[in-house]
Amino acid sequence: MTTTEISIKMILDRWHGSIKNCDTILNSISDEQLLKEIAPGKNRGIYLLGHLIAVHDDMLRLMDMGEKLYPELYEPFLNAADKTTDNLPTAATLRNYWAKQNEALQQKFDSLKTEQWFERHTAVSAEDFVKEPHRNKLNIVITRTSHLQYHTGQLALLK
Amino acid sequence: MTTTEISIKMILDRWHGSIKNCDTILNSISDEQLLKEIAPGKNRGIYLLGHLIAVHDDMLRLMDMGEKLYPELYEPFLNAADKTTDNLPTAATLRNYWAKQNEALQQKFDSLKTEQWFERHTAVSAEDFVKEPHRNKLNIVITRTSHLQYHTGQLALLK
Repeated sequence: MTTTEISIKMILDRWHGSIKNCDTILNSISDEQLLKEIAPGKNRGIYLLGHLIAVHDDMLRLMDMGEKLYPELYEPFLNAADKTTDNLPTAATLRNYWAKQNEALQQKFDSLKTEQWFERHTAVSAEDFVKEPHRNKLNIVITRTSHLQYHTGQLALLK
Repeated sequence: MTTTEISIKMILDRWHGSIKNCDTILNSISDEQLLKEIAPGKNRGIYLLGHLIAVHDDMLRLMDMGEKLYPELYEPFLNAADKTTDNLPTAATLRNYWAKQNEALQQKFDSLKTEQWFERHTAVSAEDFVKEPHRNKLNIVITRTSHLQYHTGQLALLK
């Protein structure tokens, strides 16, 4: 294994570990608990779950891996704040989306070859990428793992 | 820049970004707010801050970079749960430790050469490391960045 391959493995291991950690917490709380605020006056669990799915859906676009699976989540869970929109999907629906999306992302990740991880992501121009080669697909995984952990720490408070 | 160097840069950028993010939150809350629970019945802010310093201190040992700066934090912030020990350091003291520690870690990180990041950390044996080369110093940074983000999401609730 080269140091580059080891680096990719470590970064993907941390992504999968973080997904699993969040999964464990989600499985330990009920749909009813998900409807509660993580702290008084703060976001509800269901909003955070929808928000994570919406953010991870956007990874597909950024990593040039196809269309979003659930584009309808952008408005209520990314553009709008919690408790400002009606007709949110149910907790059961979001749990189902979450599971399906994790499978889809894993499949896509598994199909990438070493050199493909270092290709530019779609939010950076070819020109800028020459000067900033770290703005690649692998970096999308790094930053979204961070984001996932941030909100997982909040979801854990519902237990 | 090689793909290995790019990987190291991305991982260290995410560490520094996470430290900065946590810093911004800490600077936006008062010592009084730090003494509050992040959610009813959960850990207090001051415990999380001490916990982060204790965990980051242990990185020095794991990465073979010298002794812990604040070994006295192990007992109250790692071994013991919140609200079970008396005589905790003040919030002002912990803020000072946090700032000094971040400088020290940055200096140590800056001094490491590319190949040194892929040396084994001190919690893995030379034998096991042959089969598991991902158990290296760089991986300590990856996993502790995750841990930092998890608790930063909680500290943010004090705002």
